Amino acid sequence: LIESASIVFYDALVGHGAIEMIAPHAARVPIGKRAGRHSQSQDAINALLIHAALAGERVVRLKGGDPSIFGRSAEEIDAHAAHGICALICPGVTTASAAAASAGRSLTLRGSARHLRFMTAQSCDGDAEPDWASLVDLATTLAIYMERGSAARISRNLIAYGLSPTTPVLVTSGVSLPGKRCTTTRLDLLALVVKGVAAAGPVLIIVGKAMCTRATDQAVLNALVTAL
Amino acid sequence: LIESASIVFYDALVGHGAIEMIAPHAARVPIGKRAGRHSQSQDAINALLIHAALAGERVVRLKGGDPSIFGRSAEEIDAHAAHGICALICPGVTTASAAAASAGRSLTLRGSARHLRFMTAQSCDGDAEPDWASLVDLATTLAIYMERGSAARISRNLIAYGLSPTTPVLVTSGVSLPGKRCTTTRLDLLALVVKGVAAAGPVLIIVGKAMCTRATDQAVLNALVTAL
Repeated sequence: LIESASIVFYDALVGHGAIEMIAPHAARVPIGKRAGRHSQSQDAINALLIHAALAGERVVRLKGGDPSIFGRSAEEIDAHAAHGICALICPGVTTASAAAASAGRSLTLRGSARHLRFMTAQSCDGDAEPDWASLVDLATTLAIYMERGSAARISRNLIAYGLSPTTPVLVTSGVSLPGKRCTTTRLDLLALVVKGVAAAGPVLIIVGKAMCTRATDQAVLNALVTAL
Repeated sequence: LIESASIVFYDALVGHGAIEMIAPHAARVPIGKRAGRHSQSQDAINALLIHAALAGERVVRLKGGDPSIFGRSAEEIDAHAAHGICALICPGVTTASAAAASAGRSLTLRGSARHLRFMTAQSCDGDAEPDWASLVDLATTLAIYMERGSAARISRNLIAYGLSPTTPVLVTSGVSLPGKRCTTTRLDLLALVVKGVAAAGPVLIIVGKAMCTRATDQAVLNALVTAL
């Protein structure tokens, strides 16, 4: 699909490998958009895509991760449908799957981590307080797509509502990209670790026993906390 | 990875395209395993993989979907680690992402479907009754990996605990495979539709407003229900 496009609109989180697949003669349009500092509004992006399609271009809209998980693809699909433009969706590997693979862990564990929840920190911010109590469940793995500034609030609330301070958390940034960072910590150390992992940009954290590292790693971490 | 393997162990849900990538000289070992009728136990599969790796083979373990989401990859990773065998995980497109793409929908909607939960119907069966009340949330999209027999129970409970009978549900079977089926229905018609979609084998249902089809389709569906 990428190779056959005459124009490609791509996000800030798209890897170099995908960009390299674009045909030499095709137009390349970066439309980076990050929570908190939108370089272009979703409406402006929709208008750009539709304008290109109506002009007869073969348009590819390239996103990092999977477009159907916090990718705002519904808004782009609906805008196209309203103009009678047919759009095909190519699914991708969502960031949580890539992060778990990179850390050699599984997001679910048979019998003990039987549920998996995806959310964004945006739904933890502002007026609409999430139902923290419902998020605290030992049989659930929580994958939270967030900005680094949300770490302290998430950690404090999950512990206040009953998760153990020693709950393992995988912290990742730039998964599948050259500058990727990936480390495992404990829920009570989350804010500290997030500061060290990501200078800026989005962070994905995965909370729950499925992220448990080997017993020896855990013992070293616990000894460090005791020494602090 | 697939092309460089000297032996490939693959699941029943792996597509023909992936099988065709296996080198002609490599051994191909089907180890199909389906809930309810295990052709091989997980322990037997672990033993096969480890035996091949210790014999010096370049082993690829091929699964449908993403191995970290209800794929029991943790058990295989841990078994390998216990034998000092290094295993790399290649993440995949999970079935829910492929199903949403196939239906032209998104699993999340900004502002209105802000949470996404994955679960299996197994965690709805047997003694351990799930917390149905916690599953009923208008801002959540529920993706349930299940056998077709679980449809009536899931539909009945979600409605009893407060979801509207008209909540849209995407029902899919064999996503990304030649015999794939994909249809949108209402929660109260789920059991009926699942019977029509899948003769056997696993079904994925996606429940929530993010699966809403165009208003015209919905009107036709509602008229049908009224006529019944």
